[in-house]
Amino acid sequence: MKAEVITIGSELLLGTRPETNSLFLVDELGRLGIQVRWKTVVGDEEEDIAEALKCALQRNELVITTGGLGSTLDDLTRRIVAKVTHRRLVLKEDLLAKMPKGYEKQALLPARAQVLKNPVGTVPGFMMEVGECHLVVLPGIPYEMKRIFTDSVKGLLQKLVRGARPFHIQVIRTFGLTEAQANEALIETLKDLTGESSEQCLGLVAGPTGVDIYLRGCFGPLTREISILERFKASLRKRLGEAIYSEEGRDMEEVVGFLLKKRGLKLAVAESCTGGLIGHRLTNIPGSSAYFERGVVCYSDQSKVELLGVLREMIARFGAVSAQVASALAKGVRGLAKTDLGLGVTGIAGPGGGTPSKPVGLVHMALAYGAETWCESFQFRGDRGGLKLSFSQAGLDLVRRHLLHL
Amino acid sequence: MKAEVITIGSELLLGTRPETNSLFLVDELGRLGIQVRWKTVVGDEEEDIAEALKCALQRNELVITTGGLGSTLDDLTRRIVAKVTHRRLVLKEDLLAKMPKGYEKQALLPARAQVLKNPVGTVPGFMMEVGECHLVVLPGIPYEMKRIFTDSVKGLLQKLVRGARPFHIQVIRTFGLTEAQANEALIETLKDLTGESSEQCLGLVAGPTGVDIYLRGCFGPLTREISILERFKASLRKRLGEAIYSEEGRDMEEVVGFLLKKRGLKLAVAESCTGGLIGHRLTNIPGSSAYFERGVVCYSDQSKVELLGVLREMIARFGAVSAQVASALAKGVRGLAKTDLGLGVTGIAGPGGGTPSKPVGLVHMALAYGAETWCESFQFRGDRGGLKLSFSQAGLDLVRRHLLHL
Repeated sequence: MKAEVITIGSELLLGTRPETNSLFLVDELGRLGIQVRWKTVVGDEEEDIAEALKCALQRNELVITTGGLGSTLDDLTRRIVAKVTHRRLVLKEDLLAKMPKGYEKQALLPARAQVLKNPVGTVPGFMMEVGECHLVVLPGIPYEMKRIFTDSVKGLLQKLVRGARPFHIQVIRTFGLTEAQANEALIETLKDLTGESSEQCLGLVAGPTGVDIYLRGCFGPLTREISILERFKASLRKRLGEAIYSEEGRDMEEVVGFLLKKRGLKLAVAESCTGGLIGHRLTNIPGSSAYFERGVVCYSDQSKVELLGVLREMIARFGAVSAQVASALAKGVRGLAKTDLGLGVTGIAGPGGGTPSKPVGLVHMALAYGAETWCESFQFRGDRGGLKLSFSQAGLDLVRRHLLHL
Repeated sequence: MKAEVITIGSELLLGTRPETNSLFLVDELGRLGIQVRWKTVVGDEEEDIAEALKCALQRNELVITTGGLGSTLDDLTRRIVAKVTHRRLVLKEDLLAKMPKGYEKQALLPARAQVLKNPVGTVPGFMMEVGECHLVVLPGIPYEMKRIFTDSVKGLLQKLVRGARPFHIQVIRTFGLTEAQANEALIETLKDLTGESSEQCLGLVAGPTGVDIYLRGCFGPLTREISILERFKASLRKRLGEAIYSEEGRDMEEVVGFLLKKRGLKLAVAESCTGGLIGHRLTNIPGSSAYFERGVVCYSDQSKVELLGVLREMIARFGAVSAQVASALAKGVRGLAKTDLGLGVTGIAGPGGGTPSKPVGLVHMALAYGAETWCESFQFRGDRGGLKLSFSQAGLDLVRRHLLHL
C-alpha cells in the first residue's frame, strides 16, 4: 500500500520550525506495515492544496492530510477536498447539534465521508474513498490529530491492510567514523549477505553526532527476515566495533547514562565551549541524578581558576584551549564533586576566536578516573551550533569508551 | 516564480528526526522574493524520487533538491535527474582530477548542467534548465548545502528574479500568554485594520517557548504594505506589551544577550532541573563571553550546598524545589561569580518525582541583582524535553523583563 502524508498550513512552510505531525504518522503507519513514500507540506493556498491533493490521490492507495480543518479564515481543506473529489459538502445535522457557536462550518463534510470523532476538540476528521485511494482528513493540532488517529483511524487501517508486514526502523548509531568509512563497512556487509535481500538497508546519514545507519526491521513471524537483520547487524559490528554506540537508535547520553548506572559510577562535568550542553544532554534522561552529580560551565578563565583550580600560568602558557587545561578541568571537577569520573571539555566553537594553530572546530577533552587522565583532541567542521553538538558528542563518547573497559 | 523544495533521503521519512534543510531554503528563497509553495520529502526509492521530480518540474519555475548526491549506495539523485530530464551523465574531467579516491562518482553530472562548487566538501551541486523550470541539485549535508547555496545559488537566483518582491516572514514571539489570549489579540488587531489586506497574518503557533505570531512582511518600495505591517505590529504591541520578547523572530537567549551587552552587565546561572540548558542557550550566541560569566549545574543537593551556599536546613524544610532554594541559588551564584546578576532555577521535569503539592511541571526561579531578589514560579505542561525548554525560557524571560526596567 503506497501512502503519502500531506501537512497543510502556511506556518509549516515558513522556515522557522520543523513540522512534526508527519513524524508521528510515518511511525504509526510503519507499525501497521504501511510505508509512507512521500510527505508533502503545502501552505494555505487553495490552488496549491488542490494540486498537492490531486498528485497524491493519483500515486497512492492511502493519503492522510493534517491541518486546515478548523473554522478560522485560513481553513480550506474540507472545501478543497470536496472540489477535487467532485462531491458536495453536506451539513451533518448530528455534528451541527454538538458544535459550539461560531464553529458551525465544522459540521460540513463531503458527501459519503465517514466521520472520525474528535474526543478532545471541536473539529472532527473524516475518511472517504476516492477511486482506489483511501483519503483520511485530520485536524492539524498535534494533540487532537494523534488522538483521532489512535482512536479511529488506526483500527480502520488495520482492517484495510490485514496481512501486511509491520516494520520498524532500526538505527545503528556510530561516532568517530567518516561517512566514507561507514559506507565501506556497509558495502562489505551487503557483500557478506549476497543472495539475501538487501531491502533491510535504507542508507546512512552523517551529522554532528556521527554517522547513523538506517535498517528496516520487520516484526512478527517473519523469522527469516529477522535473522537476516541480525546477521546484518553482526557483520556491521564486526567491522565497526566500538564506533557503534547504539544498535537501537539511542542517543549517546542515554548510552552513557546506562553504562554509568550499571557500573555504579558518578560523573561530574566541566564545560567551557559547550556551555552546558553536555549537562543538558545528560539530564535529558529521566533518573540521571543517579549518576550525574554536577556540572560547571566555566566559560570565563576566572571560573576555571577559581572553581576548578586551573593555574593561571597554565592558561597563559598553553592557552585556555589546550590538552593541559582540559586535563586540569577534568581533574578539577572530579575533585570538586568527589565523583568517580570527571570530564573536561575546552574548544573553539567559532565563528570568531580561531587562529592558524588553533582553528575554529578544535576541541580538547579529558577524562579523569582514579589516578589516570585520558586526553583526546578533535578537529570538527560545522557552524557554531553543529560544533557545540559535535564537541558534546565527542566528550560523551570519551566517557562511553572508557566505561566499556572499566 | 513558483518554487518547490524536495528533500531526498529515506531517513527523512522515518519518523525519527525532523528535516531541517528545507527550513533554511524556504527562508533564503523568501528573502529573494521567491515563495516556496510545496515541500516534498521522499525516500531513496528510484521510482518515488522520479515521481516527485516529475511532479515538481511540471508545477514550478524553480525546484531545489537536497540529498542523495554523495557516493554512497543510496545516492541516486544524479542518475534519476539525468533520466527524468533525458540527459546523459557526463564525467567532468576537471572535477574528477580533484576528487579523492572512492568519490569518483561525484564527478558525473547531467549534460549541460552548471557545476556549483562545494568549498567545504567533496560533492559539488549542479544547476540546469529543464523546459521552463530551473532545477538546482544540492547535497544533503546541511553545512555543505548552506555553503553552496550562499556562495553560488543565491547570486544566480538573484539574477533570475530581478524585480521580484522580496519578502520575509516576521515572527512576533511572545512568552507568558495562552494560545487563546494571543488569538484574541490577533482577532482584535485584524478588526483594527478592517478594510486593509489581511494577507499579512499567517497564523500562530503555540509551543514550549511560548506563542509565536507569524506575519508576512514585504521589503522594498511597497511602502503601503510596510505601513500596514507596522500598524499591525503596533496594534499587537499595544495589546500584548512586554509579553512580546522579539518582533524579529529572535530566540530569547539572543534578546537577553543583547540587553545584557547594552547595559554592560554580567550574568551567572545556577541551574538544577534544566541541567545546563540555560547556559547552553546563552552560549549559542557568538560573543556571549562578554556577558555570561559562568554556570553551575547544581544537580545534586550536595552541589547546591557546597558551591552555592544553600543551607541544608532550607532544603530539608522547604524542599529543593522551592522559592526559598531558587532565591538562595540566585544569590549564591551571583556571589560566587561576582557578577551583576544571578539566576537560579529549580523545578520538576518529570516524568517521575512529582507530588500532589509539587507536581511535574512546577518550576521556581529567582533573579538576584544588587540587594534585591525577584522570585517567580510557573506550572507548565509537557514531556521532559518540553518542560526543560519551558523552564529555561521562563528563566531567561525573568532576566529579560528585569533588564527592560534597569
